Amino acid sequence: MTEQSGEFDIIRRFFAPLTRDFSGAYSLLDDAACLDVPPDQQLMITTDCLVAGVHFFDTDPADSIAAKLLSANLSDLASMGATAQVYTLAVAWPQPVDVEWIRVFAEGLELSQQQYGVHLIGGDTVASPSPLTLTVTAMGTVAKGKGLLRSTANGGDLVYVSGTIGDAALGLDILNAGREGVSGLDATDAESLIARYRTPTARCRLGQHLVGIASACIDISDGLLSDLGHLVKASGVQVDIHLTDVPLSEAARRMITDSPLSAHRILNGGDDYELLFTVPPEQETTLIELSKKLGIQLTSIGILSVSQSDKEDVRVFDGNGTLLSLENTGYRHF
Amino acid sequence: MTEQSGEFDIIRRFFAPLTRDFSGAYSLLDDAACLDVPPDQQLMITTDCLVAGVHFFDTDPADSIAAKLLSANLSDLASMGATAQVYTLAVAWPQPVDVEWIRVFAEGLELSQQQYGVHLIGGDTVASPSPLTLTVTAMGTVAKGKGLLRSTANGGDLVYVSGTIGDAALGLDILNAGREGVSGLDATDAESLIARYRTPTARCRLGQHLVGIASACIDISDGLLSDLGHLVKASGVQVDIHLTDVPLSEAARRMITDSPLSAHRILNGGDDYELLFTVPPEQETTLIELSKKLGIQLTSIGILSVSQSDKEDVRVFDGNGTLLSLENTGYRHF
Repeated sequence: MTEQSGEFDIIRRFFAPLTRDFSGAYSLLDDAACLDVPPDQQLMITTDCLVAGVHFFDTDPADSIAAKLLSANLSDLASMGATAQVYTLAVAWPQPVDVEWIRVFAEGLELSQQQYGVHLIGGDTVASPSPLTLTVTAMGTVAKGKGLLRSTANGGDLVYVSGTIGDAALGLDILNAGREGVSGLDATDAESLIARYRTPTARCRLGQHLVGIASACIDISDGLLSDLGHLVKASGVQVDIHLTDVPLSEAARRMITDSPLSAHRILNGGDDYELLFTVPPEQETTLIELSKKLGIQLTSIGILSVSQSDKEDVRVFDGNGTLLSLENTGYRHF
Repeated sequence: MTEQSGEFDIIRRFFAPLTRDFSGAYSLLDDAACLDVPPDQQLMITTDCLVAGVHFFDTDPADSIAAKLLSANLSDLASMGATAQVYTLAVAWPQPVDVEWIRVFAEGLELSQQQYGVHLIGGDTVASPSPLTLTVTAMGTVAKGKGLLRSTANGGDLVYVSGTIGDAALGLDILNAGREGVSGLDATDAESLIARYRTPTARCRLGQHLVGIASACIDISDGLLSDLGHLVKASGVQVDIHLTDVPLSEAARRMITDSPLSAHRILNGGDDYELLFTVPPEQETTLIELSKKLGIQLTSIGILSVSQSDKEDVRVFDGNGTLLSLENTGYRHF
């Protein structure tokens, strides 16, 4: 169903209800929204822009696009240790506006709002020739001076990742190839990998709990090697990774082969939205308890060493201890 | 010159320098930016999205696009009485990326930052099939509970506008018709009207000074009648406007004719980025002083009355006292 509708009508029907629990949004009827930040807290602010055909498929369900949009943004707040609070949304819609699509999209936002405890507080909707372009600015709070940075890891710290790596990249591969294009693929495995691509989960609770425990943190959006590279470069440290230590899901294990190409997809595919963080060794038992408490797998994948100029910042070894030559490309937007 | 360049390189060369005076931006090298809000202040947050071919011409100078982008956003903060502090920028670039264009665009941002005293703190750059889509989320601070709203005007209050109305709409008309398409148009007039369209000025200082003086405020972006309509509807009041009271620039006076079409363009054209605000009558002398102090023309254009259900919220009369039938359309995005 495609139905034309006015901008103000669409805002009133579909977006204003998403502000209902946040009075500072003025029901989207004023020029700006108002946010109080407690005196002992700081605000963390992040912006992500997703474009149809680039970051998601035009044909993806509207509610899953909404879920991915919020998760991608809130993952950045999680990596800073911040508690997500509010977000603004700017949408450039291709014409004509499809009201049913918007309804489902807003339903997806509503579900993610409940999942993460955040509120829409403002935004903009504009007509655009094409394609659908979605920009979210998310804001969260963290105790003053306690935010987790990339640049504060130390030699001797352990490197951890949450969850499993590479599922989203494999899900994207399945979507690109078509399910029938991947030989021997189990239907349940395919759905679980595609779900990791379409509707990733931001590790918000984990990020909050890592405040005071982790020495540095980043979220894995561009790819494990790329984001690990950012962290070690910013911190002036180096790390060796063994491929066999990287946590994979059962579905990923069944899909991949023992080839450099598979390793490349797992390590550089991106869109994981897991947290990559470092802790001093004495925090290991705390992490084991935290993992149990939150029900989130936390896996140590290496130990940081102080930088030596003649060594690569990040080296990857296979199960035989052979140094792999994996291009540390990561996702680049252009 | 069109030159390909990587995303991280472009951020480092052109955007990171725009954060230099704001340490919480972490030089755009972390996942989010950090902002402190003083305990006696609240944060005001607004988002605007501008699309090439919709909100500006593809051929507009890159630095003027940057100026308009920031002014359009900061105007929303001005209308809340907030002091603009920081902004995030998300850019969806058409490919290939034109590095020289970006350089000039960043120069325009730099100039506007100096003009308004704001800092870039974060953002996102993504490739997009087309067209250029720019989203800014701007944040400012205001004393707690002192923000100016649309909904708090009272019957008996005077309605004021800053500056002159309609210049930007006429500037757009000139660009659309081509300078030679407007008969008898003076070159200096044309340039001044086009400048109002391309590089509007947000009334930031005025907005800050209206805190404690104005009873309600909105910025004129959709058009005087449309935005006045928003304010009176939100406040439950009504107003009669006399066309002869609406302040026009000399250039606008020379260009327009004494026709309903001209009145329509002036009142509904939008993109003025002037402030429309209301004050109790006893504040009139304060406003005269404020106008002198800031060097900004402030013009009273009507008196609010309590709503009567059988009357239009906003009525416009011409110089003969005849009620005009101007469609109160304003700018609608779709």
